[in-house]
Amino acid sequence: MNLTLKQLAELVGGTLTGDPAAVVTGAAGLPDAGPADVSFLADAKRAADLAGTKAAVVIVPKGLSADGIAAKVEVPGLPQLAFAKVLRILERERRPLPTGLHPSAVVHPSAKLGAGVAVGACAVIEAGAVIGDNTVLYPQTYIGTDTVVGKDCLLYPQVVVRERCKLGDRVIVNSGSVIGSDGYGFVQDGGVHHKVPQIGRVVIEDDVEIGANNTIDRAALAETRIGAGTKTDNLVHVAHNVKVGKGCLLVGQVGIAGSTTLGDYVVLAGQVAVSDHLQIGSRVVALGQAGISKDTAEGAVVTGTPAQPVREHWKIQALTRKLPELFADVKALKEKLK
Amino acid sequence: MNLTLKQLAELVGGTLTGDPAAVVTGAAGLPDAGPADVSFLADAKRAADLAGTKAAVVIVPKGLSADGIAAKVEVPGLPQLAFAKVLRILERERRPLPTGLHPSAVVHPSAKLGAGVAVGACAVIEAGAVIGDNTVLYPQTYIGTDTVVGKDCLLYPQVVVRERCKLGDRVIVNSGSVIGSDGYGFVQDGGVHHKVPQIGRVVIEDDVEIGANNTIDRAALAETRIGAGTKTDNLVHVAHNVKVGKGCLLVGQVGIAGSTTLGDYVVLAGQVAVSDHLQIGSRVVALGQAGISKDTAEGAVVTGTPAQPVREHWKIQALTRKLPELFADVKALKEKLK
Amino acid sequence: MNLTLKQLAELVGGTLTGDPAAVVTGAAGLPDAGPADVSFLADAKRAADLAGTKAAVVIVPKGLSADGIAAKVEVPGLPQLAFAKVLRILERERRPLPTGLHPSAVVHPSAKLGAGVAVGACAVIEAGAVIGDNTVLYPQTYIGTDTVVGKDCLLYPQVVVRERCKLGDRVIVNSGSVIGSDGYGFVQDGGVHHKVPQIGRVVIEDDVEIGANNTIDRAALAETRIGAGTKTDNLVHVAHNVKVGKGCLLVGQVGIAGSTTLGDYVVLAGQVAVSDHLQIGSRVVALGQAGISKDTAEGAVVTGTPAQPVREHWKIQALTRKLPELFADVKALKEKLK
Repeated sequence: MNLTLKQLAELVGGTLTGDPAAVVTGAAGLPDAGPADVSFLADAKRAADLAGTKAAVVIVPKGLSADGIAAKVEVPGLPQLAFAKVLRILERERRPLPTGLHPSAVVHPSAKLGAGVAVGACAVIEAGAVIGDNTVLYPQTYIGTDTVVGKDCLLYPQVVVRERCKLGDRVIVNSGSVIGSDGYGFVQDGGVHHKVPQIGRVVIEDDVEIGANNTIDRAALAETRIGAGTKTDNLVHVAHNVKVGKGCLLVGQVGIAGSTTLGDYVVLAGQVAVSDHLQIGSRVVALGQAGISKDTAEGAVVTGTPAQPVREHWKIQALTRKLPELFADVKALKEKLK
Repeated sequence: MNLTLKQLAELVGGTLTGDPAAVVTGAAGLPDAGPADVSFLADAKRAADLAGTKAAVVIVPKGLSADGIAAKVEVPGLPQLAFAKVLRILERERRPLPTGLHPSAVVHPSAKLGAGVAVGACAVIEAGAVIGDNTVLYPQTYIGTDTVVGKDCLLYPQVVVRERCKLGDRVIVNSGSVIGSDGYGFVQDGGVHHKVPQIGRVVIEDDVEIGANNTIDRAALAETRIGAGTKTDNLVHVAHNVKVGKGCLLVGQVGIAGSTTLGDYVVLAGQVAVSDHLQIGSRVVALGQAGISKDTAEGAVVTGTPAQPVREHWKIQALTRKLPELFADVKALKEKLK
Repeated sequence: MNLTLKQLAELVGGTLTGDPAAVVTGAAGLPDAGPADVSFLADAKRAADLAGTKAAVVIVPKGLSADGIAAKVEVPGLPQLAFAKVLRILERERRPLPTGLHPSAVVHPSAKLGAGVAVGACAVIEAGAVIGDNTVLYPQTYIGTDTVVGKDCLLYPQVVVRERCKLGDRVIVNSGSVIGSDGYGFVQDGGVHHKVPQIGRVVIEDDVEIGANNTIDRAALAETRIGAGTKTDNLVHVAHNVKVGKGCLLVGQVGIAGSTTLGDYVVLAGQVAVSDHLQIGSRVVALGQAGISKDTAEGAVVTGTPAQPVREHWKIQALTRKLPELFADVKALKEKLK
């Protein structure tokens, strides 16, 4: 990257105070930034964090007066968003994408690749698969029979998307994730767990990002669905027939059991577990390690196992911490009444 | 699939009421079924669920009178089992298996492949490995040196089975699972964790299904063993030297620490953790997120961390919810006695 | 393996009592050992475990008198360390390493491979990568652009190390682990989670072992770092910008959220979760399933969610178990005072 501050200000639609001809070549957080780095201040309330930064320029909220820094670019929106725009340029430099069809890739003749599709080394694309324009399949990815991947997607090395699944546009899947594995469905009869064939599929809507080493099972009959704009962290498990709404955040190691439905903008923090066949309303937030075992109303904020509203949980938890005194009090009362 | 109702009734050994020449081409749950679909009713108690279904035919328990549906097939056993039989036909259509030895697969000349074995693109089979008849290795699978895989197994893309392990017959392994990774064994001496070489193996008995992205470690010296008919869900961790009995169900994100032994038909719900060197009796059931930290007797149903019998746990939990009243009561008593 | 007891005693620097010409060909634990096996006794206090062993020779602590066993080798240090030395010989026999560059591997011409590097079948090494002397890349591994791997490393099948990461010397990575996946970083604006490009890297220091199916995210801007000698078990999640100190043990299914720092020799037991932006002091120990949600002082031993010192936690937990009596007592007091 080699941007003058003038170019940078134009890129992010901001107003520069400083030398327009000065150049940045990298980006860093305020304390780590050097004299060729752009940095950002997320929030005017934290203006004290600017002190001592060596950054060449700092992207700041509109109207922030900032003395003692080399230069600033005021932006009307969120400074971090403007900063992300700069990072995308750096990213392009630092993350070279495969291009073209690597000769070691194994692409079935009946698969259809859009314009500008890249298929990395040792990738395998099965019969009838369709890959949208400008989608990048890194080396060693696997696309199953009749699976459809949209445009501008990015599948990192060793992603598996099994047969007959559907990914929308601009979907990112990190390495090691498996989409379309068999749901966990068995019928017990006479001490034997008989497999129920899982013939459904997975649908991932537009603008979803799936973290690394996720497992998203195909439905028994119909579909498992991840709503548009939802982002999952690493090692997340989504069972068969689950529906996740739009814009949800599923943080590391979350597990959602079969046939549960999440509304939109649900946030499940790390290691949260959700039982099967539940309805979780939109904008529900579950704190880390919560175990949700019943339907949860829109907007509820829950914690604990079994999960309950945070206020109730914390109130009870505070009282359990006072149990030593309570036991002592009761003992004293008993003595007194003897 | 293109089955007449006559053929369908014969396939599942049931009795048809309806037009024997009518045809089904798909399968679906009762609410989703269309006029060319077969569906099923699992339980006569839920006969109300039949109302309004558009299914061409419904597989029902023997003796169920069912008005208002297009046709029914009464079966003597579990309707879901009969339905699963139909699904297997659909599955064969929808999940084309690799056949033959793909030219890009890398098979060591000393490996032995049985009759009808399929090896997908970019799969790697090391020296001395033995693959049983009709086993299907999807693309990008890895079979280590001297590993033995039984007959009629199905290993989905990107499964790793490391050296000297053994899989029985009819074993299914979902994508991304690793069988035979090194156990977590170190000796600390002088601030250094020295690795203890893990030279044992993993034995997976017949009819086991392993979910996606599991990790089943090889034993330090002898073997880690998964008993016949056991089914694991996704992201399950089985440490070195663990013995899992027959017919167990290990649900998503379960973790079992080293050298623990599970009896038969143990059910561990999602995110359950079991400590090391424990004996867990047959038919133990642990509810979601339980943390089992001591030996557990046959048939116990446990929950919580540390896990205890559900009745005790729930009783205590119910009392903690009444703590606000108890604190108030004690306060009132103290006032009274002042 | 074919060692005389004389050779074995020399190998481990111990003193033999027994027939120096006798031969061992295998190794096993005391109860499983046969007459051609070497075994070990970890601790003199457990000398009773020697009774009935059929081992050809047992490695024992210096000074242990041991009657009734075929032979013993007394060692000055930890017997298990000496035993591990023997196991390394067995391991070499039982775990054949790939050698040379497999013709199906795809190595970019600009990648630099040190002397004695092995690259297995269908492995992919991108442009500018550097692989140190004697490092072994098993089949189907992936090394990203400009990534540097040190000397004497061992990467098992289907490991992914993405672009611009750095692994030190003698690093072991088990199958299915992903190093350098994108951190989970988004800025929400107007109901949309905008991706913050993750342009940092992961640094893994010398002598680290990473278990199977781990996910270690690259930093947003700078680096995620795993300190020298740290060992992770399976399915461990390390988020972006985390710093793990030296000699830490992260047991199965541990998750560490973004920007948290762990000191040295921290031990996190199975399924422990650590929240983001925390400082965890050196030698902190967290028991299984703990949820650490605040900074934790050096040497603390914590448990529960939220994690607190074990003594406090256990005291409160013991009192909750006595709640039935307390409720009864209070009821009786109320009756008395009526």
